[in-house]
Amino acid sequence: LFIIIEALFDKKQRKCFLDIDEIRPIKWQTEKLFLLDQRSIPENNNYVECSSCDDVVDSIKNMIVRGAPAIGVAGAYAMVLSWINSHGESQNERQKIFLLDAEKVRLARPTAVNLQWAVNTMVETFKKVKSECVKTSLEHAAVAMHREDLLGNYKMGDLGSEFLESDSKVMTHCNAGAFATTGYGTALGVIKSGWSKKFIKHVFITETRPWLQGSRLTATELRSENISHSIIVDSAAASVMKSEKIDWIIIGADRIAKNGDVANKIGSYSLAVLANFHRAKFMVVAPTSSIDSNCDDGATVPIEYRDGKELLRPSDRDKESLNFCINPVFDITPAALIDVLVTENGAIRNPDQRKIAALLKYRC
Amino acid sequence: LFIIIEALFDKKQRKCFLDIDEIRPIKWQTEKLFLLDQRSIPENNNYVECSSCDDVVDSIKNMIVRGAPAIGVAGAYAMVLSWINSHGESQNERQKIFLLDAEKVRLARPTAVNLQWAVNTMVETFKKVKSECVKTSLEHAAVAMHREDLLGNYKMGDLGSEFLESDSKVMTHCNAGAFATTGYGTALGVIKSGWSKKFIKHVFITETRPWLQGSRLTATELRSENISHSIIVDSAAASVMKSEKIDWIIIGADRIAKNGDVANKIGSYSLAVLANFHRAKFMVVAPTSSIDSNCDDGATVPIEYRDGKELLRPSDRDKESLNFCINPVFDITPAALIDVLVTENGAIRNPDQRKIAALLKYRC
Repeated sequence: LFIIIEALFDKKQRKCFLDIDEIRPIKWQTEKLFLLDQRSIPENNNYVECSSCDDVVDSIKNMIVRGAPAIGVAGAYAMVLSWINSHGESQNERQKIFLLDAEKVRLARPTAVNLQWAVNTMVETFKKVKSECVKTSLEHAAVAMHREDLLGNYKMGDLGSEFLESDSKVMTHCNAGAFATTGYGTALGVIKSGWSKKFIKHVFITETRPWLQGSRLTATELRSENISHSIIVDSAAASVMKSEKIDWIIIGADRIAKNGDVANKIGSYSLAVLANFHRAKFMVVAPTSSIDSNCDDGATVPIEYRDGKELLRPSDRDKESLNFCINPVFDITPAALIDVLVTENGAIRNPDQRKIAALLKYRC
Repeated sequence: LFIIIEALFDKKQRKCFLDIDEIRPIKWQTEKLFLLDQRSIPENNNYVECSSCDDVVDSIKNMIVRGAPAIGVAGAYAMVLSWINSHGESQNERQKIFLLDAEKVRLARPTAVNLQWAVNTMVETFKKVKSECVKTSLEHAAVAMHREDLLGNYKMGDLGSEFLESDSKVMTHCNAGAFATTGYGTALGVIKSGWSKKFIKHVFITETRPWLQGSRLTATELRSENISHSIIVDSAAASVMKSEKIDWIIIGADRIAKNGDVANKIGSYSLAVLANFHRAKFMVVAPTSSIDSNCDDGATVPIEYRDGKELLRPSDRDKESLNFCINPVFDITPAALIDVLVTENGAIRNPDQRKIAALLKYRC
């Protein structure tokens, strides 16, 4: 698979691949997973060392690693660690632990389907190989997934940016960049590619409460690439769309239903409605691993609700009486509000069930 | 005027007036103005003592006092302090200082027209009275404005809540409550009145970045009145409107143009567009002092841009490279998106130039 996808890149793309940006949130070294602690970006660039499956699960739950593609790949490595750490047990016991750990990883966060997809891929790999080859096969599968994600991002960047016209003003929400993936990014990949092709004039970043992935992570990425940008509060999106005549809203996805409905960071649906009103176009960029072929439409996507305290200032969090916060962290954008869906297998206008099924045909 | 407005209240309203809520952001005592420092609510209830016009101007600029009606009344008292403090000067000099101070107060914040309205009222009072009566007249004028604002809020609460049906789910943005006025509130006055009439089932409060007036101030007010409420991030408004089938969005105003366009906290326009899409109704509640008869439409309202650092976490504020924030603190909602405008002089559906002119006829 790796070779097939790599063959898609032309020379221009290869060049791009050489002078890659430096942000790598996931590193696999000598049977340890190192995850960049994204909670303290931009103040600190600390990697958390994960030497067990539980370490990775906790890191996913606690937002050390976030972004659908990134948690998918981290989940794959978690399965490698699970197998490595049970080496003293009987073969039977190891299998039991592996399958129990698979379930733990699947449940670490509910909305992004990439996590389930990655774990399922690892479990299938596990079931296919002989017992003496399990470790090597799992490690190879995880590393392949890691590399394919990065390659897919470059492909999506190239495909998506072709929809932009020169001097476009774009807006993005949350962080669907290098931090959210294995590098380069999905929505931010399109923006980086569009910037390098001189199709983009300026990027407006919504800060993205409550975790501020926009003002902390996306701003850090665009700054490091010298891409012209501004940060705004989430609620300024409507007035900025109007005053700046925004051309495109470009976001990632945590799960895409068969009919094209998209689950993504809370506020994405709001931007889609506002874009519709202001005649800005709306682009979703995500790997085909984010498409859930078990999910008919957005109504069946499980929406994660995190602790309401995440909305409060640290000084207010102890006050029991203040905890009247509702904290859904994703919302559903109906396919009807999406102009373009970009995947590594191709980009489609006005996504619907038929077109999405066609995209998946080519998934290995 | 005080007597006329008071006469409007029926017995039920009087009762309401007796068991008033306790939040009073502005207190005038023995020639000093005490302003509740709203930046540290709910942690602390500290009053800042202002003994000069400059003290008040600084308090307005630094958000110690905020909310269009509240800064209007604070501005009126600033003019009293200006006069008191120049008592050692010649009559000519005092007048010069007074008019210079008037200009300073007018410019403290640009968007809310109440500040200009209050200062103009004080300057007119000053010009009308004999020199030996200036202090008494100014103090009386400011105290009358203070009392009328509170009475007007009860009137608006009663008028506005009559538009609600039983078991309404409402959403409000920022704080247009007791904290933003002299007590009770404009939009929150309608919500408090609606709750007491059992027309409201639940209130959704947008946290309102960057100053969190929703989660800090509005939540504090509703909690103290035991009104059922939840706090959400600003960007969750669209998905909550859809999932909860919100009936009404109820907000205040900083300036209303002659044609009915409304300047209010950044994000209000966003909510109006989202309400339109979700068929929720949109109500603006503000005293007639917020109507600017010199302003034809929203395009001519000056929008305040505050320091971009307000968007950043304290730990990020020192990093020069991070300051790519654009921080408009108000936006314009076109009249076409407003279903009801409530003032102390009456409430109108689908506000337009003719109806607004009629409302102003009765302003003294």
